[in-house]
Amino acid sequence: LRELRRIVSICQNGQDMTDKLQPAQPGFSIGIDLGGTNLRVAAYSNEFQQLDMLSLRTRLEAGPAAVLRDMADAARSLHAAQNGYGKFVGVGIGSPGPIELPEGKLRAPANLPGWDGLALRSELHKLLDMPIIVESDANAAAFAEWRLGAGKAYGVDSMAMFTLGTGVGGGVILQNKIWHGAMGMAAEPGHTVVYPGGPLCNCGSHGCLESYASATGVRRIAAEIGATAGGERLQGMLAKHGELHAHDVATLAREGDAASIKVFEEAGAALGLGIAQVVGSLNLSLYIIGGAMFDSLLASSQIYRMTQPENRGQFEVRMTNVFPAHLGPEAGLLGAALLPWSE
Amino acid sequence: LRELRRIVSICQNGQDMTDKLQPAQPGFSIGIDLGGTNLRVAAYSNEFQQLDMLSLRTRLEAGPAAVLRDMADAARSLHAAQNGYGKFVGVGIGSPGPIELPEGKLRAPANLPGWDGLALRSELHKLLDMPIIVESDANAAAFAEWRLGAGKAYGVDSMAMFTLGTGVGGGVILQNKIWHGAMGMAAEPGHTVVYPGGPLCNCGSHGCLESYASATGVRRIAAEIGATAGGERLQGMLAKHGELHAHDVATLAREGDAASIKVFEEAGAALGLGIAQVVGSLNLSLYIIGGAMFDSLLASSQIYRMTQPENRGQFEVRMTNVFPAHLGPEAGLLGAALLPWSE
Repeated sequence: LRELRRIVSICQNGQDMTDKLQPAQPGFSIGIDLGGTNLRVAAYSNEFQQLDMLSLRTRLEAGPAAVLRDMADAARSLHAAQNGYGKFVGVGIGSPGPIELPEGKLRAPANLPGWDGLALRSELHKLLDMPIIVESDANAAAFAEWRLGAGKAYGVDSMAMFTLGTGVGGGVILQNKIWHGAMGMAAEPGHTVVYPGGPLCNCGSHGCLESYASATGVRRIAAEIGATAGGERLQGMLAKHGELHAHDVATLAREGDAASIKVFEEAGAALGLGIAQVVGSLNLSLYIIGGAMFDSLLASSQIYRMTQPENRGQFEVRMTNVFPAHLGPEAGLLGAALLPWSE
Repeated sequence: LRELRRIVSICQNGQDMTDKLQPAQPGFSIGIDLGGTNLRVAAYSNEFQQLDMLSLRTRLEAGPAAVLRDMADAARSLHAAQNGYGKFVGVGIGSPGPIELPEGKLRAPANLPGWDGLALRSELHKLLDMPIIVESDANAAAFAEWRLGAGKAYGVDSMAMFTLGTGVGGGVILQNKIWHGAMGMAAEPGHTVVYPGGPLCNCGSHGCLESYASATGVRRIAAEIGATAGGERLQGMLAKHGELHAHDVATLAREGDAASIKVFEEAGAALGLGIAQVVGSLNLSLYIIGGAMFDSLLASSQIYRMTQPENRGQFEVRMTNVFPAHLGPEAGLLGAALLPWSE
């Protein structure tokens, strides 16, 4: 009866996630952040402190089987090192998408060439006899930001996160849970069209958000604007380095170069359109922006123009709030480690 | 204990809405469909059969107080007529938006001039001592389509509906419930931007979906295309009637007039972009299109081009399915009557 009452209370208050995420008993989980370049594997305590981390190179050239072995070896080694810490709850993986859930079947992921069709969860399970949960890396980061970062700071049960890096990823948390949609493909804000007829994206559409608000997008816009009158400093940067990096464009923007500022204004305007699309569908109060590209974007602060001016920097639950992420680059790894606690 | 077990079962199976919507005891509810032109008030049985309906003119010129009195009088009269049918569960209202929920506070609704700031639920409650639930009309229609129309036919727990009329409304059902967002303003697909820099919408933005995929949008596009070479039949229609109606443009399109077909292709392409935005946020499997404008749009069938070709007309739970609504113009009224059963 007490157990029934507990479940009823959980149902009525919608607090099951929080409940399970703060276990009374000491314990630990292992998070894996699988990237196209780096493979990070870490053990986290039940209080979400990092106990131990292994940072490896993702050996893409050796093929998926080798990388899966690296993941399994790292997880086993971390597990052995924490022995005695308390209950081990499992392994969470944040993987590049697109990925079908819960099986973790990869669908031609741009950052993991040669992994198309691989069922991440079951393949890793063959090498590693532990509970394994797979998420997209952007969903894992959004989950960490909701649970321990911006979402916690503002006390919301629902939010959307946009992760700006080489591409644009995203995650939507609705009522304390990651929203997966019909096949685990939610959310994909990087591939919604913000400018119909815009540049061709590698997804096959034209004018996707990712073609503007990512590092790749910024390089593309910078090349365009650099070729126009006023773009001399961008041209000079290109001549000097042989290519235009987003962080170099950001440096020029911070130095006041009008053409470089315009690059980020265009990227920021596209991001604003992408956020507004989610506002129109879901009317959430909190939209969080993270990822390595975001610092560069802040150079222009254009993204704040899409929110009510009186609302900047101050959270209002009945408004549209757009704020920076709190957790930085650890979000994806930490989010992966949170997953086993939430099952 | 039995009650606890029932609640646990409901929580675990997510079937609470369905449970409550099929009560064992006979009973009835009253639905009110408040429109800018017509006010329809109807009693529905617990099996969702219409028992009785009053169709009135919305006396906008007499002011909100008079219309509220009409609503209260009609509800009282229907209630008295059903006396003896069984338990009365309450009144549901579908109102033009934008509207803040659950209070039902109207925010400058275009279709109810002079009603800005009126708190629909509490004002009606002063005249009518019955349980009252307010929703936006588009949410009410989406709820009916989910419960008794297309959503029931395809067996989904989540879907989005776009209602194409004078404007474009929408509703999102997530896991058997209407999704309201932070202040009850979800969903507003009519006012997400599909073509940045497009025509000015009366919401203040440029290039909103409503400026293309509504009757108003079709008239605007038809006027534009009518003024170009090949638009002679549209011009002739304009000269004959003094103005271009969407249904006249649809008639021309069905007769094969290329310029008129192009009008609906443009409207349909915009709708496709609007649907794709929700796909990007939520990855739902079912998108339903309803409203009086939809028959006209079908003249071009452009909207199906945004879905996978192999998927047309056949529902696949792991795909993006775009289908017509099942219930027709009764959806809003029926949805309003369903609301009291869902509380």
